[in-house]
Amino acid sequence: MIIQGFKTSAVAAGIKPGGALDLALIWSQTPAVAAAVFTQNAFMAAPLVVCKKHLQETGHRVRALLVNSGNANAATGDAGMQAAQQCAELLAREVGCEPKEILVASTGVIGRTLPVDRIRASIPSLVSGLLPTNIELLAQGIMTTDTVPKIASVEVSGAEIAGVAKGAGMIHPDMATMLSFVMTDAAVPHAELDNALRYAVHRSFNSITVDGDTSTNDTVLLLASGASGVRMRSVQKEFEKALRGVCQSLAEQIVADGEGVQHVIHLRIEQAKDRAEALRVARAISHSLLVKTAWAGADPNWGRILAAVGRSGVRVNPNRVTIFIGAQKVCSASTACVFDERAAHEELSKAESRVIVQLGRGRARLDFLTTDLTTDYVRINADYST
Amino acid sequence: MIIQGFKTSAVAAGIKPGGALDLALIWSQTPAVAAAVFTQNAFMAAPLVVCKKHLQETGHRVRALLVNSGNANAATGDAGMQAAQQCAELLAREVGCEPKEILVASTGVIGRTLPVDRIRASIPSLVSGLLPTNIELLAQGIMTTDTVPKIASVEVSGAEIAGVAKGAGMIHPDMATMLSFVMTDAAVPHAELDNALRYAVHRSFNSITVDGDTSTNDTVLLLASGASGVRMRSVQKEFEKALRGVCQSLAEQIVADGEGVQHVIHLRIEQAKDRAEALRVARAISHSLLVKTAWAGADPNWGRILAAVGRSGVRVNPNRVTIFIGAQKVCSASTACVFDERAAHEELSKAESRVIVQLGRGRARLDFLTTDLTTDYVRINADYST
Repeated sequence: MIIQGFKTSAVAAGIKPGGALDLALIWSQTPAVAAAVFTQNAFMAAPLVVCKKHLQETGHRVRALLVNSGNANAATGDAGMQAAQQCAELLAREVGCEPKEILVASTGVIGRTLPVDRIRASIPSLVSGLLPTNIELLAQGIMTTDTVPKIASVEVSGAEIAGVAKGAGMIHPDMATMLSFVMTDAAVPHAELDNALRYAVHRSFNSITVDGDTSTNDTVLLLASGASGVRMRSVQKEFEKALRGVCQSLAEQIVADGEGVQHVIHLRIEQAKDRAEALRVARAISHSLLVKTAWAGADPNWGRILAAVGRSGVRVNPNRVTIFIGAQKVCSASTACVFDERAAHEELSKAESRVIVQLGRGRARLDFLTTDLTTDYVRINADYST
Repeated sequence: MIIQGFKTSAVAAGIKPGGALDLALIWSQTPAVAAAVFTQNAFMAAPLVVCKKHLQETGHRVRALLVNSGNANAATGDAGMQAAQQCAELLAREVGCEPKEILVASTGVIGRTLPVDRIRASIPSLVSGLLPTNIELLAQGIMTTDTVPKIASVEVSGAEIAGVAKGAGMIHPDMATMLSFVMTDAAVPHAELDNALRYAVHRSFNSITVDGDTSTNDTVLLLASGASGVRMRSVQKEFEKALRGVCQSLAEQIVADGEGVQHVIHLRIEQAKDRAEALRVARAISHSLLVKTAWAGADPNWGRILAAVGRSGVRVNPNRVTIFIGAQKVCSASTACVFDERAAHEELSKAESRVIVQLGRGRARLDFLTTDLTTDYVRINADYST
C-alpha cells in the first residue's frame, strides 16, 4: 500500500556486519505533523535527545526520519550527541531542509561510537533511492536480530495508516530496543495526533513484555502527512481505533518474535480496582522467572502465579482471587480447584494460550501480552561476544 | 557445637519422595524467647498465620518448632489452616506443652494438601530421637532443592549462636522460599531479640536475590534459651554483630546454592542518597534478565547494567554514574572507558566477582548479593512435573 505524501528507502551502510540493510529513511514531501513517545529510561540515548529538541523547535513538524540499526548511539556522551546532530545535518543538506526538521533513531549495541563516516557515505544513495512507501523494505531496514519484519496497516475512511516495528525481544546481546514508526496520510493537528498516539501506545506497546528490560532507545513515532485530504477530525473515533489496531498488531508481532519465545501468553487481569493496579499485577506475573519458566514447560503451576500476585504490592484478599488457564478454573479463593491437569498442560503447550487472573477488587480489566522464558533466551543473551 | 537448652531431631516422614529427611524438630527445655520475620507476600501460607497467632498468644514464648519440607501448605485454604493447627496439637501432646507454644513451618510445593497422617505417624520417633543440638541433621531436614546443607555458628562471650537455612529458588527475601532458624543460648528479652533479628535480616537476607520471587512461606526465626547464663544486655554490641554475621553467612550460602547459579556477584551500590534508593538500584540490576544472562556468559557488558540503573526509577544524572567490574572502571559519566575487556571477562568468570555502581548522588552504600541466570535455572524450573 502507498501512504500518500511519504517516500521511503533503505540501504546497507556497513554498520551491521554481513551487508544487511541497516540504514533507512522516511521522507515527507511537505512537513509532516509528528507525535512521539520516548523511553522512560533515565539514560536516554543521544538520538532521542536530539529528536525531542528538534520536535520542540519545529512545533512537531518533520521532513525526514533517519534510522540506523547495528549501533544504539547510547551511553556515548557528548561525542554521541554530536554524532546524532551531525547525521541530521548531513541528511538535511542532502534533502534540502533544516537540520531541526530531521529526526534520527538508532538501535543496536550500547556504548560504541556511531560510525558517522559510513552513514555519511550512504546518505546520497539512500536519498536517491527514495520511492513511494515501501513498507516491507523499511521494516527490513530497522531489523536487528528480529527474525521477521513487522508490519501493520489499515485503511480508515479513505486514509491509510501503516507502521513498522523492530523487536523488544533482545534478540542479540545489547540490542534491547523497541522502535516503531507509523505513517498516515490523514490530516491531523498535533494535539489530536499526540492524544491518539499516547492512547494507542498505552494500550498496546505498554501492555507487553518479553523480559522486563526497558531500553535506552525505545521510540514510537507517528507522522501524519495530510496528503490524502482526509481530515482526522471528521473520523476521529475510527482513526483512533484504527491507530490502536496498528499498534496492537505491531506489539503482538514483537512479542511473538521475542528471543527464544516458544509460548505467547494472553494474560488478562480482571476485577482490579483500576487499570494501574491491573498493570502492576500483570507485570509482577510477567516478570516472575518462576512463572515464565513454568510456562516454558507448559506447566499449569498456578501456585507460582498466585505467589507473584501476592508480591505485586496490590493488597489482594486471598479469599477473592481466582485463576483460569484457558477455560478451566484452576484456583479459587486462592486454593486449588479440581481441574484436568492434562488439558491445562495442553492449553499451555499451544503457541498462544490464555491465562486469566481475577482479583476480586473491582471492575477494571487489562489485556497484557507476555512470553515464556526458555533456555534459548539465556543462550542467546549469555553469549560472550564483546 | 551444642546450643544449651535445645534439642533437635529429624526424620524421613515420607512427605518428600525417596526417603529423604523431611520432618525436623527443635525443642527447648524451657520456654524460649522468640523473634520472627515473615514474608511480605499477600498470600501468607497457613503455617505462618498459625505462628503469628501463637507468638502473640504466648508473648513470644516457644517450646518447639516443627518444620516439614516437601509441601508448603500454601494456598490450601481453611483445610491448610486446620492441618497446620493439627500438627501443632499433635506435637504439643507428644512433648507435653500447650499447642500455642508450638511453631510450625513448611516448604515445598504450593497448593497441595499437607499429609497430616504421615506427620502424625512420624511425631513419636521425631520426639524420641531428640538429642543435643545436631545442627547438621537439622539443616538436612529442611532442604528442598538445596544441594548442600546451610549452617553458620559463632561463639560470643560464652554464648553460642547457630543457625540453619534452606534456599534454592524463589529467593528474593522481602523477607524467598527461604527458611532460616537460628538458636542462641544467650538470655535475651523479647524486645532486644526482635530488634537484633530485624536489623540482621535487613542487612543479610533482605539484601540478596536469586530470581526476584518472594515466597508465600519465607520465615526467619530466632530462639533464645538463656541456658548459657550469658545475658545479652551485657554484650549487646557483640551479640548483634555476631547474629548479623550468622545471618550474613547463611544468606551467602543460599545465594551460592541458588538454582543453576554459576556466578555469585557481590554488587555494591555507592554514592546513593540513602539506603532505600541504593536497594532500588541493586534490585533493578539484579532482576534484569539481560544483566543476569550477561553474567552467565561472564560478559563485561556494562551497557546492560547502565540501562537497568536507568529504569530503576531513581533519578540518576547520567553524567555522574560510574561502573567498576572488579578493580577496573568500565564506564564513567555513563560512557565507555578504555579497559581491558579480557581481564573484565576473567573477573566475571570467577565463582565470585565484584561489581560496583556509583550513583553520584550521596554517601549511602549498600552491599547486595546476587547471581547469574543460567540455562540450568530454566531447565530446573521449566520441568513439567505436576
